[in-house]
Amino acid sequence: MSMGKTGQQTLVFENKPGVLGFASIVGQKEYEGPLGDGFDMTLPKDDTWGEDSWEKAECKMFAEAVKMAAGKAGLKTTDLQALMGGDLLNQIISAGFAAPQIGAPFLGLYGACSTMAESLLIAASMVNAGYLDNAACATCSHFSTAERQYRNPLEMGAQRVPVAQWTVTGAGCTILGASGGNPVITHGTIGKVIDYGIADANNMGAAMAPAAYDTLKTHFTDTGRNPGDYDLIVTGDLGLFGTQALKDLLKEDGIELPNHFDCGVNIFDTENQDVHGGGSGCGCAASVLNSYLLTKLQDGTLNRILFMATGALLSPTTTLQGETIPSVAHAVVIERSN
Amino acid sequence: MSMGKTGQQTLVFENKPGVLGFASIVGQKEYEGPLGDGFDMTLPKDDTWGEDSWEKAECKMFAEAVKMAAGKAGLKTTDLQALMGGDLLNQIISAGFAAPQIGAPFLGLYGACSTMAESLLIAASMVNAGYLDNAACATCSHFSTAERQYRNPLEMGAQRVPVAQWTVTGAGCTILGASGGNPVITHGTIGKVIDYGIADANNMGAAMAPAAYDTLKTHFTDTGRNPGDYDLIVTGDLGLFGTQALKDLLKEDGIELPNHFDCGVNIFDTENQDVHGGGSGCGCAASVLNSYLLTKLQDGTLNRILFMATGALLSPTTTLQGETIPSVAHAVVIERSN
Repeated sequence: MSMGKTGQQTLVFENKPGVLGFASIVGQKEYEGPLGDGFDMTLPKDDTWGEDSWEKAECKMFAEAVKMAAGKAGLKTTDLQALMGGDLLNQIISAGFAAPQIGAPFLGLYGACSTMAESLLIAASMVNAGYLDNAACATCSHFSTAERQYRNPLEMGAQRVPVAQWTVTGAGCTILGASGGNPVITHGTIGKVIDYGIADANNMGAAMAPAAYDTLKTHFTDTGRNPGDYDLIVTGDLGLFGTQALKDLLKEDGIELPNHFDCGVNIFDTENQDVHGGGSGCGCAASVLNSYLLTKLQDGTLNRILFMATGALLSPTTTLQGETIPSVAHAVVIERSN
Repeated sequence: MSMGKTGQQTLVFENKPGVLGFASIVGQKEYEGPLGDGFDMTLPKDDTWGEDSWEKAECKMFAEAVKMAAGKAGLKTTDLQALMGGDLLNQIISAGFAAPQIGAPFLGLYGACSTMAESLLIAASMVNAGYLDNAACATCSHFSTAERQYRNPLEMGAQRVPVAQWTVTGAGCTILGASGGNPVITHGTIGKVIDYGIADANNMGAAMAPAAYDTLKTHFTDTGRNPGDYDLIVTGDLGLFGTQALKDLLKEDGIELPNHFDCGVNIFDTENQDVHGGGSGCGCAASVLNSYLLTKLQDGTLNRILFMATGALLSPTTTLQGETIPSVAHAVVIERSN
């Protein structure tokens, strides 16, 4: 058993913790998108899902995604040795209030929309090291809770700028285990927080692209790999404009990214679904990973991906106080086991 | 090198990651308390600390505590292989905005007032397993930012109920390293989220006591230890009323806790400083650990403590929506190395 680090920021998981089960839940709009068939469950048209509030519906999404994923892994939620995750709401209340329903020891995380990758990275490191036999990694977001917390009351009907992204109503959970899982996680690159001076809270893709660039470059340097070593380089929710910004930054270094896949660009039909720059939110990368991507890794369509979720670490308070937007990107390598 | 878990929720750190450096910063009121002499730095009477806002002052406290602790460890902040932490503000902006100033890879955590213990637990597990040579664990809180975010505008002068606790203006950082540190961290118990049905957001000690009880009982069962194995059983910020609740719960099981020390009770003179139930906030346990407690462990006054910080995972939104208060407690064993 050898464990450790390669390069500056990349952890190596030699015991290859693997995916025992995964599940996703999305809203109607996401179901109507190009990846709609792959999700396990869709909310009814009324996105309160029978609850008193959108926040309670979002919490229910988190809890149900974990329960479904545990079930697919052949585990009761009480068998889970840890639950790691968070969400976009103040004090990560979706995760925090779902946790007692799950009953597993809980590590609350906040990485904004990078949380799915952050939870996989920490869980893989703990499972790989032998501390835990399994761990659930989960996150979620909800259009209606995010809009009213971060932007405007929905009733106001505020017009959205062209670079704005649409917060995905979605939840995803991956159950990692010490043995028997497929695909497996082999590396994790912990991102640095990068502030490129972007102050427009409506253009989060642009704010997050420099963090994605930094983590990607570090990952390649740390591992000695290049984009061709991956079937897909997946980003969380850079959207149309952030994706372009990332490609422009890489181009300056002579790096092309032909095999790039942004969950925010792909979860919606950006031409016909009126989402402007694409999808965003913790639940975007989480629901796409825990449906389309892990399915393709299991059926052999994909062999190895770099899953990198980006998070903009702003708050409405920092925006009002005139601050720019620091962002972070964490990445994990997920590949089919031999 | 043997790593793993004992019992249900307790990780064992056999390579004994140790404390390379630690630092604390507090406000005037905390400096005037019984532990005032032990803190490294005190804010001026104006708690904006020369910044435009209290939030920016809180962020500066976080950054300065990390810089000071790294300096004491003989490290530049750029030598830090990871920064793990969070705070009470929405989207953990104190930590997120301090991170680019530090420049280390960043894992954002949210465990409310349990964050200091959560960060030590995750960092110790990663350092112990060989992924990282060192890691900075930090958290903070600020009376003026917490009051206006969680309660009322300060200008309103709202009267406080007798069980209310006073949010500590404080920050603390511990630098853990793979070798050469003293004291060392030998175990970590990951807490479950417990909701005992307490709905009074002004009585967080009562809401958190059942989580502390659950983690403490689990820790004793997992390790085969009892209170007598520790010089101190430290809780974060149960305050006067939460401490009594914890003792009452343990008494039903026939467990006495004579060597108990609550940071919230001890940071202020609860009789003369008009703080009602005592101190609270992430910065309470963080500043007391990274001054008084670690100093006593280094000078030999204390040999082994259980450091358990508790967090109430509520938000103003959940309180307004009539929810009860789920809470969590994480614990780490810190002892003098031989």
